[in-house]
Amino acid sequence: MSIATETKPKLTNISANGTWVGQSSTDITSGEFSFRVSEPAALGGNNSGPNPFQYLIGAFEGCIAVVVETVAKEQGLTIDAVDISITGTLDLRGFEGVEGVSPHFQCVVGEVNIKADITASEFATLVTETERRCPIYNLIRDAGVTPQISWNINN
Amino acid sequence: MSIATETKPKLTNISANGTWVGQSSTDITSGEFSFRVSEPAALGGNNSGPNPFQYLIGAFEGCIAVVVETVAKEQGLTIDAVDISITGTLDLRGFEGVEGVSPHFQCVVGEVNIKADITASEFATLVTETERRCPIYNLIRDAGVTPQISWNINN
Repeated sequence: MSIATETKPKLTNISANGTWVGQSSTDITSGEFSFRVSEPAALGGNNSGPNPFQYLIGAFEGCIAVVVETVAKEQGLTIDAVDISITGTLDLRGFEGVEGVSPHFQCVVGEVNIKADITASEFATLVTETERRCPIYNLIRDAGVTPQISWNINN
Repeated sequence: MSIATETKPKLTNISANGTWVGQSSTDITSGEFSFRVSEPAALGGNNSGPNPFQYLIGAFEGCIAVVVETVAKEQGLTIDAVDISITGTLDLRGFEGVEGVSPHFQCVVGEVNIKADITASEFATLVTETERRCPIYNLIRDAGVTPQISWNINN
């Protein structure tokens, strides 16, 4: 893959603006898109949108799907379906300020179910390359919490 | 703050399900909420929703606002406005599979503008506590990319 020998940086900036609207809720704009981040009542919010970690886990799932699609295309494979389910566990004491408790993930566990008529070897490469290249997988892993993802193939 | 002496874990799970719909796009459901993650055409998508990093940066901004609001409440401070602008820089070679290039952030830079009638000391505590306790700030910092946030106060 000639693409993997590129040595010149390909920097891209991703920006967003957030305006707090009270009750633990914030309106975000990024490019042409806008969305609301909120919290359930138990965390002081009015539940007017997904909370930050619902977006983060959803973004992680979207990120996995993009890399699966990209790697499959490079390999000349056809993917019929990708379904992903991920759960992150937090210890709220970190958010509450208790010293020594990480405010982010204690663990991240999930599964990726792929439907494709591919060989075991092609599937193994797809999994390895996706975990190696998925930006949000690497962000969470580099933060010290390697996501425990079960990869399943079904044709 | 008695809350900061809690020693029993307060574990909470946050889950989402993602269904890939083709063209680098994925439909997410999490609790009662649903949202679309997509990519611009340059990354193989149909631009039908924010990309994963737009959601991640938006979630980060929402997360900062929640912690600012929470810490201010603990301190008995009234916050009038919070406006946040953050940019993350990626080197797309990581996503493309170039060895040795991180697929996530090269840097994260931004500013938080707070409007509140509070003292310099109260503001300093608000900033320190927010960076110490904000889950997504800590996730990115623990991944080796300390967010460079400029905090400004205006009353």
